[in-house]
Amino acid sequence: MPKTAAPPAQLTTGPLPGSRKIYVQGSRPDLRVPMRAIALSPTGAEPNPDVIVYDSSGPYTDPAARIDPECGLAPIRRGWILERGDVEEVPGRPLRPEDDGRRPGEPAPPLPRAAARPRLRAKPGACVTQMHYARRGIITPEMEFVAIRESLRRQQLRPARAQHRGESFGLPMPEEITPELVRQEVARGRAIIPANINHPELEPMIIGRRFRVKVNANIGTSAVSSSLAEEVDKMVWATRWGADTVMDLSTGKHIHATREWILRNSPVPIGTVPIYQALEKVGGRPEELSWEIFRDTLIEQAEQGVDYFTIHAGVLLRYIPLTAERVTGIVSRGGSIHAKWCLAHHQENFAYTHFDEICEILRAYDVSISLGDGLRPGSIADANDRAQFAELETLGELTRRAWQHDVQVMVEGPGHIPMQLIRENMTRELEECAEAPFYTLGPLTTDIAPGYDHITSAIGAAMIGWYGCAMLCYVTPKEHLGLPNREDVRQGVIAYRIAAHAADLAKGLPGAQYLDDELSRARFEFRWQDQFHLALDPETARAYHDETLPAEGAKLAHFCSMCGPKFCSMKITQELRRYAAERGLGDAPAARALAAGMQEKAQQFRAAGGEIYLDATSPARAGAAPGA
Amino acid sequence: MPKTAAPPAQLTTGPLPGSRKIYVQGSRPDLRVPMRAIALSPTGAEPNPDVIVYDSSGPYTDPAARIDPECGLAPIRRGWILERGDVEEVPGRPLRPEDDGRRPGEPAPPLPRAAARPRLRAKPGACVTQMHYARRGIITPEMEFVAIRESLRRQQLRPARAQHRGESFGLPMPEEITPELVRQEVARGRAIIPANINHPELEPMIIGRRFRVKVNANIGTSAVSSSLAEEVDKMVWATRWGADTVMDLSTGKHIHATREWILRNSPVPIGTVPIYQALEKVGGRPEELSWEIFRDTLIEQAEQGVDYFTIHAGVLLRYIPLTAERVTGIVSRGGSIHAKWCLAHHQENFAYTHFDEICEILRAYDVSISLGDGLRPGSIADANDRAQFAELETLGELTRRAWQHDVQVMVEGPGHIPMQLIRENMTRELEECAEAPFYTLGPLTTDIAPGYDHITSAIGAAMIGWYGCAMLCYVTPKEHLGLPNREDVRQGVIAYRIAAHAADLAKGLPGAQYLDDELSRARFEFRWQDQFHLALDPETARAYHDETLPAEGAKLAHFCSMCGPKFCSMKITQELRRYAAERGLGDAPAARALAAGMQEKAQQFRAAGGEIYLDATSPARAGAAPGA
Repeated sequence: MPKTAAPPAQLTTGPLPGSRKIYVQGSRPDLRVPMRAIALSPTGAEPNPDVIVYDSSGPYTDPAARIDPECGLAPIRRGWILERGDVEEVPGRPLRPEDDGRRPGEPAPPLPRAAARPRLRAKPGACVTQMHYARRGIITPEMEFVAIRESLRRQQLRPARAQHRGESFGLPMPEEITPELVRQEVARGRAIIPANINHPELEPMIIGRRFRVKVNANIGTSAVSSSLAEEVDKMVWATRWGADTVMDLSTGKHIHATREWILRNSPVPIGTVPIYQALEKVGGRPEELSWEIFRDTLIEQAEQGVDYFTIHAGVLLRYIPLTAERVTGIVSRGGSIHAKWCLAHHQENFAYTHFDEICEILRAYDVSISLGDGLRPGSIADANDRAQFAELETLGELTRRAWQHDVQVMVEGPGHIPMQLIRENMTRELEECAEAPFYTLGPLTTDIAPGYDHITSAIGAAMIGWYGCAMLCYVTPKEHLGLPNREDVRQGVIAYRIAAHAADLAKGLPGAQYLDDELSRARFEFRWQDQFHLALDPETARAYHDETLPAEGAKLAHFCSMCGPKFCSMKITQELRRYAAERGLGDAPAARALAAGMQEKAQQFRAAGGEIYLDATSPARAGAAPGA
Repeated sequence: MPKTAAPPAQLTTGPLPGSRKIYVQGSRPDLRVPMRAIALSPTGAEPNPDVIVYDSSGPYTDPAARIDPECGLAPIRRGWILERGDVEEVPGRPLRPEDDGRRPGEPAPPLPRAAARPRLRAKPGACVTQMHYARRGIITPEMEFVAIRESLRRQQLRPARAQHRGESFGLPMPEEITPELVRQEVARGRAIIPANINHPELEPMIIGRRFRVKVNANIGTSAVSSSLAEEVDKMVWATRWGADTVMDLSTGKHIHATREWILRNSPVPIGTVPIYQALEKVGGRPEELSWEIFRDTLIEQAEQGVDYFTIHAGVLLRYIPLTAERVTGIVSRGGSIHAKWCLAHHQENFAYTHFDEICEILRAYDVSISLGDGLRPGSIADANDRAQFAELETLGELTRRAWQHDVQVMVEGPGHIPMQLIRENMTRELEECAEAPFYTLGPLTTDIAPGYDHITSAIGAAMIGWYGCAMLCYVTPKEHLGLPNREDVRQGVIAYRIAAHAADLAKGLPGAQYLDDELSRARFEFRWQDQFHLALDPETARAYHDETLPAEGAKLAHFCSMCGPKFCSMKITQELRRYAAERGLGDAPAARALAAGMQEKAQQFRAAGGEIYLDATSPARAGAAPGA
């Protein structure tokens, strides 16, 4: 892309195994909500209906979609935005060499053709945020879109087995997610729909405590290690495995161009940390930053279509000394840049002093603000300290100020926190920030496992998601050590989808348990292909199975690859049920039937002997459990 | 080993990188407690003391130890056992062809030479369990050993930074772990020291809620997929990464011989599920099982030195129908074998009806009993149901009966449990089973991620460990799919060491945070080698770092491989501290110093400009965090 305008060769397309894209039609023809339908094989002669799951992957998994990075994705929201009549086309800020870290005269890297589309901005005096509309009682197409998306086809799920009662800590989960509920939550500030008017390619999604827990993946070019084409594919790749938003944390050269390619091809909201680019513009010297340079960068990125900005406006001069006795000081890059500027100038953080002007920019494009936690703890020792909570209080103040401008807000959280201190983070955030959505990095529950921090942090992420965190920023196995590659991105996203789903189950999100039940049913019925297809990562599930029992026949086997045909415990339960069914006693109350027929059953069991088990020729088993 | 008597070629020996074995001398010359000392590089000119960590790896990581699988490990406990004067040598049960699944006349697989050592049994009427001694006020060498082992060198850790206050749910963590405390906990039944008198090679360890959370790894030959030599190495390999006990779940041929090789070479307690071998003896037909065959198997394994038996004595006939409407029925293999027998005979479980006779056997060898949860849920849908808790009540009854025989008991737990229902499992276990140690498999917090169940379950394991679970049975990435290989074993053990350590931090185990603090300090000071060496898996940590910055010089770099030299946030805090130190203001109260000198600092910062950052030539960075 800098070097060639051709689409990157490695862009990953095509459906996941066993899945196909479907669209649910909303109230208007141009409102079509994508979902993934997983086809199941029958149980005996009885067909099983498709399982419908949330789909963050965009058109890349739709074989009918035309994918051309030059043209970008279809601007599905453009009509919605224009018909509101509150925006105007603007010539936009001219591109400057420093936007891409070029020396004057150095040629600009190529941009996608889609970049030529006119940029939009609110008409003078207008506010174009979803919060603004919501507070005025307007249900936007974006709100309807996310209502359908979050509901899946929940009405279809009704007949399914009741799920466990959740614990949602005082805020009940909604039985139905209607457009009106979405509007209310956005108006209240308890949820956001990050959706810049210059990112019409976006498939809207919602971040809030009464909805499905979301996952963010970070990508970004660095000076030496990754190419622009790689980064676009990393975005596609991350959303394929379930990332709900992507942060582009590129540094070095070609920051503007990288972002343009990513935005024009991204079906999910894109977040950035604008101070990174601002810093590049001043040659990496934080002291030389200024409000004017920062402001210019916000406008540059808002015009490109960035959906949310992380801004560390809560790093106040007086808080910096509070970090002096920490084990790991300030570990947030953005936080440390602002801290250094504050110290160098002995002045208050310009993102704080100019916060209202920042909000004026954000509301003109509907960029959501993600209030960065620049003083988050970088080690277990520093968890929940005064520096962290002092900043959180300021983030609460800023939340309310942003809301005065109808700017959508989320609040960032840590970091490294031992399990017993996680809950306090969530509780304080809800109190200080008036229930604005919380967006945390992990938290990592121990410092001692570099190389496995996707796991140390998935533990904390699952817990804080349960407690009410709305979005979880992934951590890859390379955290603290190096740059994540493609496989690291997948590992990180899957670990975080696990955490997010475990949280959905625990808080009792209606319908969440449906997928667990369907997968377990498939497992119990030895529908191997279905088990793979229902898995978060069908490819890995199948590959692991094939390592032990590679033959295609094994995927039809009525035993699992661990216990082998002789010992399969699941078979016994099936036998019990068949017995009840044969006696015409139906499935319920099978318990009574079984109790009554126990004596008869005893004789039958003896007579049947080894026939309960298949006589397969390739048994294999391995340790499974205490008392396996 | 069946085919050759030579030690297996792939047996893994040698210290972990940067570590060496040390021994702490107890009250007698033959009581030497192994620990791992990690050497650190200095901070500037200031040397850093070694970090001492718990070491489950046995003599394999001691270059001074002579390793010869034929001879087995040194029988370090034999003197302790004999001097108690309550055991006698017995000829032992003769080896039978069916013990190894041989046809009559088929030659027996070779046994290690160490197998020729005479077997021990309690003298008639005697009881040789650690609980028995503890209740009589005797502190055994085993108790002193575990007290030293659990304490590490905690007195040395005292000066270190105070750790966060834990939450231990009503049972305070001990400030000091003395031999007397160990005795009290064992006498009370709240902890066990699994230590069969026929496993003198064992380095004693303790399983209980007031101690370090432990991890079990399962291994075991299967009919087709693994060799005997492989299994011995898997035991060594699992303990190298931190498994505290190992369960040998072998099936198929050569079960007896496999176990003998493992036991003679194992420094950790070995657990088994004896019903598996009993079933092999009757050709895999559960209906043909009998109390006599089961009893014979218990004696066979007790004489070999198995330290704990999983016995599913709580699977009662009347509970089986309670599983009939489950999504996944009975998923415990042991549970399903007993269930099938019960149904086939319409009789009560022989392990229940003969429970007192079982205890008579266990007390004569000090085999601990692990009361199996044969009716544990195998899916989220089946969590916390009546079948599960009915069995738990019976396990409570059996706990008390075993204690009447002075038999050491732990209780097994699930399984698949959504997060909000985990706590109830722990609470009920403590109530029903009078605080006997709980030993759970995970629990898995969702069913939807086959291929990643080490992660779905590490989440639940960390939480239940925090709530009070004493030992966590690992789950590998292959769970539900296939047989774990070496790398899967490592992944499983590390994921569970993470969970166990996160639990130790959360419950406030004194000293637990020391390792986190040391690793974070090393990270902050850019002591890369130390960071690798302090990691749970130093090899992987280093390999990941090398992928991004392979040069040796990068390991001395004063920036991390993610943010690169220009942006390193940690550098700023270091600069702040240096400033305070230069002004002679010392480290504390550095905060005051910084506040006072802010104006001066501002000028200095400007003057110093870019010099704060190194001018390295291989910068690299990648996305790290929301608000990174």
